[in-house]
Amino acid sequence: MEVKKITNRDVDFAKWYTDVCMNADLVDYSTVKGSMIIRPLGYAIWEEMQKVLDKMFKETGHENVQMPMFIPESLLNVEKEHVEGFAPEVAWVTHGGAEKLEERMCVRPTSEVLFCDHYKKIIQTYRDLPKLYNQWCTIVRWEKTTRPFLRSREILWQEGHTMHRTKEEAIKETLRMFNIYKTFQENYLAIPVITGKKTEKEKFAGAEVTYTIEAMMYDGYALQNGTSHYFGNHFAEAFGITFLDSDNTLKTPYQTSWGVSTRMIGSLIMVHGDNHGLVLPPKIAPFKVVIIPIGEVAEKLAELEDNLKESGITYKVDNSNKSPGYKFAEAEVKGFPIRIELGERDLKNNQVTLVRRDTLEKITVTFAEIMQNVQNLLEDIQINLFETAKKRRDSMIYEASTYDELLDIAKNKNGFVKINWCGNQECEDKIKEDTQMKSRCLIESEEVTGPCTVCGKKATTRLYVGKQY
Amino acid sequence: MEVKKITNRDVDFAKWYTDVCMNADLVDYSTVKGSMIIRPLGYAIWEEMQKVLDKMFKETGHENVQMPMFIPESLLNVEKEHVEGFAPEVAWVTHGGAEKLEERMCVRPTSEVLFCDHYKKIIQTYRDLPKLYNQWCTIVRWEKTTRPFLRSREILWQEGHTMHRTKEEAIKETLRMFNIYKTFQENYLAIPVITGKKTEKEKFAGAEVTYTIEAMMYDGYALQNGTSHYFGNHFAEAFGITFLDSDNTLKTPYQTSWGVSTRMIGSLIMVHGDNHGLVLPPKIAPFKVVIIPIGEVAEKLAELEDNLKESGITYKVDNSNKSPGYKFAEAEVKGFPIRIELGERDLKNNQVTLVRRDTLEKITVTFAEIMQNVQNLLEDIQINLFETAKKRRDSMIYEASTYDELLDIAKNKNGFVKINWCGNQECEDKIKEDTQMKSRCLIESEEVTGPCTVCGKKATTRLYVGKQY
Repeated sequence: MEVKKITNRDVDFAKWYTDVCMNADLVDYSTVKGSMIIRPLGYAIWEEMQKVLDKMFKETGHENVQMPMFIPESLLNVEKEHVEGFAPEVAWVTHGGAEKLEERMCVRPTSEVLFCDHYKKIIQTYRDLPKLYNQWCTIVRWEKTTRPFLRSREILWQEGHTMHRTKEEAIKETLRMFNIYKTFQENYLAIPVITGKKTEKEKFAGAEVTYTIEAMMYDGYALQNGTSHYFGNHFAEAFGITFLDSDNTLKTPYQTSWGVSTRMIGSLIMVHGDNHGLVLPPKIAPFKVVIIPIGEVAEKLAELEDNLKESGITYKVDNSNKSPGYKFAEAEVKGFPIRIELGERDLKNNQVTLVRRDTLEKITVTFAEIMQNVQNLLEDIQINLFETAKKRRDSMIYEASTYDELLDIAKNKNGFVKINWCGNQECEDKIKEDTQMKSRCLIESEEVTGPCTVCGKKATTRLYVGKQY
Repeated sequence: MEVKKITNRDVDFAKWYTDVCMNADLVDYSTVKGSMIIRPLGYAIWEEMQKVLDKMFKETGHENVQMPMFIPESLLNVEKEHVEGFAPEVAWVTHGGAEKLEERMCVRPTSEVLFCDHYKKIIQTYRDLPKLYNQWCTIVRWEKTTRPFLRSREILWQEGHTMHRTKEEAIKETLRMFNIYKTFQENYLAIPVITGKKTEKEKFAGAEVTYTIEAMMYDGYALQNGTSHYFGNHFAEAFGITFLDSDNTLKTPYQTSWGVSTRMIGSLIMVHGDNHGLVLPPKIAPFKVVIIPIGEVAEKLAELEDNLKESGITYKVDNSNKSPGYKFAEAEVKGFPIRIELGERDLKNNQVTLVRRDTLEKITVTFAEIMQNVQNLLEDIQINLFETAKKRRDSMIYEASTYDELLDIAKNKNGFVKINWCGNQECEDKIKEDTQMKSRCLIESEEVTGPCTVCGKKATTRLYVGKQY
């Protein structure tokens, strides 16, 4: 049996990405055009993400619910900007069995209107607020192209939808969830992120403000890894949602929504993966350790398994009849943080080989030393992955004070570029046309010191631009 | 604020059921026709069910995956019996955005064909077997009527789909998962179940054998609470799935599928609920305890919360500004297994009142005795709910040796009836026509001693019949 080859990451990054997705058995293409199959390892990573995020959501008072999957056309049409943003890419159900429906329904592309429809019923007084709901589900957007985890007609995600008594409270919630996403991605996925407001052009259809989490992939391209929206009361007004406040007047509540999806698996791959395949940060790896027994080692294997179980460290044993070399390569392609080679001959000399996936460094320890080393390595790997990604990311952030500089960077380098911006969409559009780069987010922490990098007029803000997936 | 009224269970069971669903905030009707909204308590119950079952599935070697949501018409058509069973009740997607699809797709009503399509790609040799996959997802069946958790266009469920090298192994798997369902329902949901094979008429479209889990509701009606199917190699042959066996010959694998859904929440309500509302078995209740503070008890409340957290007992505190009486009624309607009334005056006498939801019995204990009593009560309630349901169920199982007896029972009583049966569908159809009762399952453990209860010819089996939801 031959190990499947992975294209070199520096030669053809797009092909490398697909090779890793396929060879690590994360996904498979389906005969259902536009849809992907998420295979056991891919789904297990998603389950780990769900477990951590769901806990964070619940600890901050959110409750899970399940809204309908379908949206009747008239309901989608209630909020104007929203329907314009989504109608071109929805899947329409027109028939139930043999009968034509009186009104066609789309499969939800997102669920703002469904939540509003429910909130209108269940919100009466200020005592009913806030409503902090979340939903784990599949959404559908009729994409023309398919790329595993990045672009697909069906997307697994969570969508939080909340309603608040005051504007201040809603803005606070928007930022709270935005920060939960940031914490999750940095601490668990080991992905350093750049965060900030989207420009008017790039914000969510119907939102007042969109906050975005932008991660930089190995090739310098951006991946939008999560968004948190403040809606003001646009939707609430369109749906006629009101509550009786304590001062006995009818008011309109303020709304947020926020979501992350299986797209994060794409960024895990493209931030940490290497020419051997997937590299999983220990805190999100479904199995922290893979054990490869070589020869007659049943007794020691059982002992090791007991120790791992006792420490709550998840693991897999590769007991297949493939050669050790093949198993090593497969352990690497699937990204297990630590590989333990449990060899009959080595054990006679009281030796065991541990291999850490991030650096592929081999460490020889005694059997008794395994557990302590595993614990330390898991911590080390988590830190090292984040630091490596951060160093690379920082080295690919550029600064352009003139438009020529921007064009030069766009031509010769990949990464994010900081510019000054006047705030006009024309300049944003011009950058897009000339360089393929789009606005990533505003940089509100930096002072504006020069004119707009594009038009030379007075700049009002600093802005990240970059190419994107 | 007035407590919402619940119709008396013995006066109008159907209305009582809807009242409990709505007043316990389990579900809400949606403006999306045919679909339900699952509210926080309803969804939390489903999450508890998922948690236990998912662990049982994984412990028996199953892996979770996610297949596409859509099935192109040509794919649905591959297995003849299957498409005949499902085509009349699927939702058809005909347009993506403004474009008409070349081939329409239905939203999955079940995923046998999608799994087979994938298995055809990933199964090559006997070393690839067994494949033990499961999927948690939403399916759609275009129902004309809607009843919370029982009948709805969208159903949340899990569907296991497995492929095996031999017939024996596949049959073993069918029975293993069937037994996991039985164990889960009896040990966690506290629902005694009747189990066995479905008749030819009642089995799943495309299956060779269907095993069913039948629960009896308070009113004597049956609810099919889960099924496990053995497919032989019908689907595998239709899809051309083969594997190279160790004897170097190409063979066709054997298949199973098995599923349970949010319908189980319906049976929880209809088996354990009473005139005060929902009654949740402690092992499946998202919150085992509700604490109702009365007066100034902040310090003792904090202490009690610490103790519950330490013991891993989930709880809610009702801190709303409603009256104690209202809170008691709400705690009852929502089915918390134990209510702790933490009153300022009682605490001065070192007294606390515990109320168990199943019997509504009040127990007065000292503050220090709370935890021990809670632990014991949770165990007692779990056992008592099962025993009560079993006693009632057993008292509603009848025997009919003549057709007149069967007609008499059908007219005057509700429950399951044991009969002798010749095995002909004509007799099954006649019972249905005359009594509304359908076959529940074969009783293979009992010896056949008389002629067919319907036609008087030679009986070949014993059979449960009963009315159903």
